[in-house]
Amino acid sequence: VSSNPADASLDPWRTAITNSDDTGIWYRGYDVATLMRTSSFAEVVFLLHHGRIPTAGERRLIDAILIAVADHGPGAPSAVAMRTVATGNRQAPEAAIAAGVLAIGDAHGGAGLACLKIIGEALDRAKSDGQSLAEAADQVARDAAATRRRLPGFGHRTHSTDPRTVTLLQLAREERLAGPGVEFVVALERAVGDRIKPLPMNVDGAIAGVLYDLGFPPLVGKLIFIVGRVAGLGAQLVEEYTRERPMRVKVPVAYDGPAPRPLTEPEIA
Amino acid sequence: VSSNPADASLDPWRTAITNSDDTGIWYRGYDVATLMRTSSFAEVVFLLHHGRIPTAGERRLIDAILIAVADHGPGAPSAVAMRTVATGNRQAPEAAIAAGVLAIGDAHGGAGLACLKIIGEALDRAKSDGQSLAEAADQVARDAAATRRRLPGFGHRTHSTDPRTVTLLQLAREERLAGPGVEFVVALERAVGDRIKPLPMNVDGAIAGVLYDLGFPPLVGKLIFIVGRVAGLGAQLVEEYTRERPMRVKVPVAYDGPAPRPLTEPEIA
Amino acid sequence: VSSNPADASLDPWRTAITNSDDTGIWYRGYDVATLMRTSSFAEVVFLLHHGRIPTAGERRLIDAILIAVADHGPGAPSAVAMRTVATGNRQAPEAAIAAGVLAIGDAHGGAGLACLKIIGEALDRAKSDGQSLAEAADQVARDAAATRRRLPGFGHRTHSTDPRTVTLLQLAREERLAGPGVEFVVALERAVGDRIKPLPMNVDGAIAGVLYDLGFPPLVGKLIFIVGRVAGLGAQLVEEYTRERPMRVKVPVAYDGPAPRPLTEPEIA
Amino acid sequence: VSSNPADASLDPWRTAITNSDDTGIWYRGYDVATLMRTSSFAEVVFLLHHGRIPTAGERRLIDAILIAVADHGPGAPSAVAMRTVATGNRQAPEAAIAAGVLAIGDAHGGAGLACLKIIGEALDRAKSDGQSLAEAADQVARDAAATRRRLPGFGHRTHSTDPRTVTLLQLAREERLAGPGVEFVVALERAVGDRIKPLPMNVDGAIAGVLYDLGFPPLVGKLIFIVGRVAGLGAQLVEEYTRERPMRVKVPVAYDGPAPRPLTEPEIA
Repeated sequence: VSSNPADASLDPWRTAITNSDDTGIWYRGYDVATLMRTSSFAEVVFLLHHGRIPTAGERRLIDAILIAVADHGPGAPSAVAMRTVATGNRQAPEAAIAAGVLAIGDAHGGAGLACLKIIGEALDRAKSDGQSLAEAADQVARDAAATRRRLPGFGHRTHSTDPRTVTLLQLAREERLAGPGVEFVVALERAVGDRIKPLPMNVDGAIAGVLYDLGFPPLVGKLIFIVGRVAGLGAQLVEEYTRERPMRVKVPVAYDGPAPRPLTEPEIA
Repeated sequence: VSSNPADASLDPWRTAITNSDDTGIWYRGYDVATLMRTSSFAEVVFLLHHGRIPTAGERRLIDAILIAVADHGPGAPSAVAMRTVATGNRQAPEAAIAAGVLAIGDAHGGAGLACLKIIGEALDRAKSDGQSLAEAADQVARDAAATRRRLPGFGHRTHSTDPRTVTLLQLAREERLAGPGVEFVVALERAVGDRIKPLPMNVDGAIAGVLYDLGFPPLVGKLIFIVGRVAGLGAQLVEEYTRERPMRVKVPVAYDGPAPRPLTEPEIA
Repeated sequence: VSSNPADASLDPWRTAITNSDDTGIWYRGYDVATLMRTSSFAEVVFLLHHGRIPTAGERRLIDAILIAVADHGPGAPSAVAMRTVATGNRQAPEAAIAAGVLAIGDAHGGAGLACLKIIGEALDRAKSDGQSLAEAADQVARDAAATRRRLPGFGHRTHSTDPRTVTLLQLAREERLAGPGVEFVVALERAVGDRIKPLPMNVDGAIAGVLYDLGFPPLVGKLIFIVGRVAGLGAQLVEEYTRERPMRVKVPVAYDGPAPRPLTEPEIA
Repeated sequence: VSSNPADASLDPWRTAITNSDDTGIWYRGYDVATLMRTSSFAEVVFLLHHGRIPTAGERRLIDAILIAVADHGPGAPSAVAMRTVATGNRQAPEAAIAAGVLAIGDAHGGAGLACLKIIGEALDRAKSDGQSLAEAADQVARDAAATRRRLPGFGHRTHSTDPRTVTLLQLAREERLAGPGVEFVVALERAVGDRIKPLPMNVDGAIAGVLYDLGFPPLVGKLIFIVGRVAGLGAQLVEEYTRERPMRVKVPVAYDGPAPRPLTEPEIA
C-alpha cells in the first residue's frame, strides 16, 4: 500500500450556515425545530443566505419570486430535458431533476444572474461617475445597441407582457422595498425602448431588480430560480411517470450528411 | 436530405399543471400573479401536486418538511458532491447543484420514498387482511429482522434522537392531520425496538408518515427532499465560491494495486 | 469554531487501478507513457477493468462494442437531453454531456446491464439445476411470457434486424471468444420467437452476451455504453453549437387541466 | 384541451453525423458494421468529428490522448464527485458518472479547451500582425504576467514534470503531425519560464497543441477529455460498488457561524 503524500492532509470543510450535533440542528444559529414551528420555507431561504430572518415584506418578495418561477409547462428547456431523461430512466427520479437543473444555463433561467451583474456594474459606475440612474440605464442600452447584444431580462419568447413582472414590481413598491435595483431595471426598460425597440421587461429582469434591492449577489439570481423551478419539475415528473409511457419522446430527425460510401483502402491509408 | 419516417410524428406533450398564453400563466387554473400576491411557496408546492390550495394546517406541514431538510452542513453527500464540482467548475453553478441532486439517491435522501412505499404496502395489506396497524408494523419489523434489511426511515448516522422528527409528528397531531401514515411509522418505531433494536425514527420516516397522510405518492418523498435541500445547496454554493479557492478539494488516497511492471510481449500477444 | 467529532476522521480512499507520483502515472501497474506509445484506448478500457492487457481478439470486441454504440442520431433520448441542455446552456458543455449520460437509464442504454443480469442468473441456475443452455433460455422466455415482462436485449423501436448484432456475434465467433454468454443470448432469441413472438436480438443483447464471455460484471453493460456514446454526444454537441441557435428546442404542448378559476375564500380556508 | 400555438411547429432536428434506417446505421456515410470489423474506437472518435477516417499517425495521437486522460485516481475532482454520488446512490450508476462529468469544468479538465482558445487567438494574431511564433508566445506570457492570470495548460498540482506531456509531444513529432499548435505551446512554456517562473507544460497544454494541429475546435479539448475520463470513472465505479460500503464518504466539518440564539419577536417582526 502506498499513499499519495501530496493528498494526505485534509483541512476541515468550513461553513457558517448550518451546525448540528447529536441532538440538534441550527441554521445560522436558529434551532431548526423552532423554525419548523414558526417560519415559512421562504423565510428560511432568505435566512440561509443572509443570516437573519426576513421582515414580512422581504418574505413576501421571496415567496413571490419562488412562485413566479415555479413552473412554465412542459415546453421550457428544463422541462424538456427533465421529461426526456424521465422517459428513459424510471428508476432514478433525481437523474431527471438534475437534467432539468442542467438546462438552467445562460440562455434559459440564467437571465437573472446576468441581469444582476449588469445592475451591479451600472450602479457602481453611476456612483463613481456621478451619473443618474436614467443616464446609467441609457448607457447600458446604447452599449447593447452598439454591440448588438441581447440584454438579459428583456423580451420573452412567449409573453408580450409578463404579468409576473408587473406584479413583482408592484409588490416591491407596496412593501417599500423597491430601491435602486428596481428603479434601474424600470429605467433600463425605458431606455431599451428608446434606443433599441420596445422589449418588455421579463420576469428575470424584475427578479434581478428586486434581488439587488434585497442585497443578494448575482449568483442568487440563478440559484433562487433553481429552487423555485425544481418544484415545478417535480410535479411534472410525477405527471410524466403517471400519464406517459417509457421511451415516448420522439423528435423528427433529418440527416443531411454524406451518402453511404465504402471504406476504401487509400482512406484507411 | 433524408428524414427518418419512424420519428416523423410528434404528439403534443400533455400537462394538466401549468398553462400559459401571451399574457398569463395559470398553475392548476389559478392565476400566477394572484398566487404571487396571496400565497406562500409551500402552498404552491402543494398546489402543483394536488391541484388545490392547501389548508393552513397542510401548509404548515409542507413548510415544516421543506425547512427540516433544507440543509445539513457540508458533510452530507449532496453537499460534498456539490462542493467538489463547484471547486472544479466556477462557471456553471447549475452543474454543482445538479451534482448535489444526483447524490440524493437511495442511501442519502431516498429514505422518504422507500419508507412511503413500505407504509403504502403495509396499510394496503392490513386493510385486505384485517390486520391492525400494530400488527402490520410488527410484521414489517419481523420481515426486516428475518431478511436483515435496513428499514428506511429509522436510525441516523449522526443523531441519536432527531429533533426534526419529534417536531414534525407533533405538528401533524396539533393540526389534526396525523392519520394512518403517522400512526404506522410510530407503531413501526416501537416494533423495530421490540424485534430488532432501538432505532429512533429519523426525519425521513416522519416525513414519510406525514406525506402519506397528506395524500402524496411515494415519489414525492424524494422530490420534496430535493426542493428543500436545493435551498441549502445554493447557500453553500455561494459560501464555497466566496470563501474557498478553486480546486481545494483533496482526499487522502491509498493505492493498493499491482506494483509497476513492464509491458511485455507475451501479454500483448 | 466547533467541529463535528463524528465526521473528524477520514480514511484514505483506496484504489487498485491508478497510481501516480511526482513523475509518473501507472494504470494497473503499467506506465501510462508506454501505454500511450503502444496501446489503443480500447485496450486501456479493458485494462482498467480487468487489470491485464487484452488479447488482439478481446481488443477487437471492445472496439466493436464501443463503435457500435457511439452514436444513434439526434433522436436518441440521450441526444435529445444533451441537445436540449446545450440550447439553453452554451457556457457549460459538460452540463449537456452529463444530461445525455443521465438519460442512459433503464429504458435507454440500460438493456445491456439488465440482460447481463439475466444471463448470469440463468447460467448459474442452469449449472446448479443441470439444465442445458437451451432449457435455461426457454425457461427465461416462458417466465417473461407468463409475467408479460419485456426482455431487455430483444426488439428495437427502429431496426427490424440490427446489423450491429449480427456483426458483433460473428466477430466473437471468428475470434473464438464466443462462450456460454453468446450461446445463451442466441438460444434466448430462438426461445423468445417460440414462446412470445419473433423479436430480433438488439445490439444490447449481443453486447451483453459478449461482455459476459469477456468476464465483465453486469454494471459494465451500462458503463461501456456510456463510454462509447459520450463520443457521439460530443460530436453532436459541436454540431449543435455550430449549426443551431440557442433556445431552438420547442415541443408542441397541450394543456388539459382545469380552466382559469378564482382563488376564493373557502378554498384558502 | 388547449394547445400553445407558439409551440405548435417542430422543425426536424438536423444532423450530418449519423443516419440510420430500418436495417442500417452509417457514421458520416460509413457503414457501422464495417467500422466494427475494421476500425478502432479512436478512429471513430476522429471520424465523428472530422467526417473522414484518420491516418495511422492521427489515430495514434487520438489513442494517446484518450489513454493519457483516462484516469488519475480517486483524488481527482471528477472521481471525488463520482464516488460521493455512488456512495449515496447505488441504483443509478449513470448518476455517479454524470456527477463526475460535471466536475470537468474550468479548473479541472477544462484547461485543454481554454488553452486551445489561447493558441487559436495567438496564432491568428501572429498571422495578421506578422509576428513569429516565439513573439506571439512571449506576448501571451507577458499579458498573463501583467494581469496575474494563470495560463491553462501550464503547472500541475501533483506532477513536476508530466511524462504524458513529453510522450505526447514526441509522438506528434514522430508522426510528423506537430505543426504550429505544438510549436506554440513549446514556445509558450519557454516564454512562461522567462516571464513568470518555470511552469512545466501539463498534459492539457500538450493535448491542446496536438488537437490544434489535428484541426479540432477548442470545444473538443474538453470533450475528448470527457470521453477518456469516463473510462476511468467507470472502472472506479465498479471498484467503489465492489469494495466500499454505502454512505462511506465523510469529510471533517468545522462550523464557524453564529452560536445558538433564540428566535425573538422583533426579528420576526
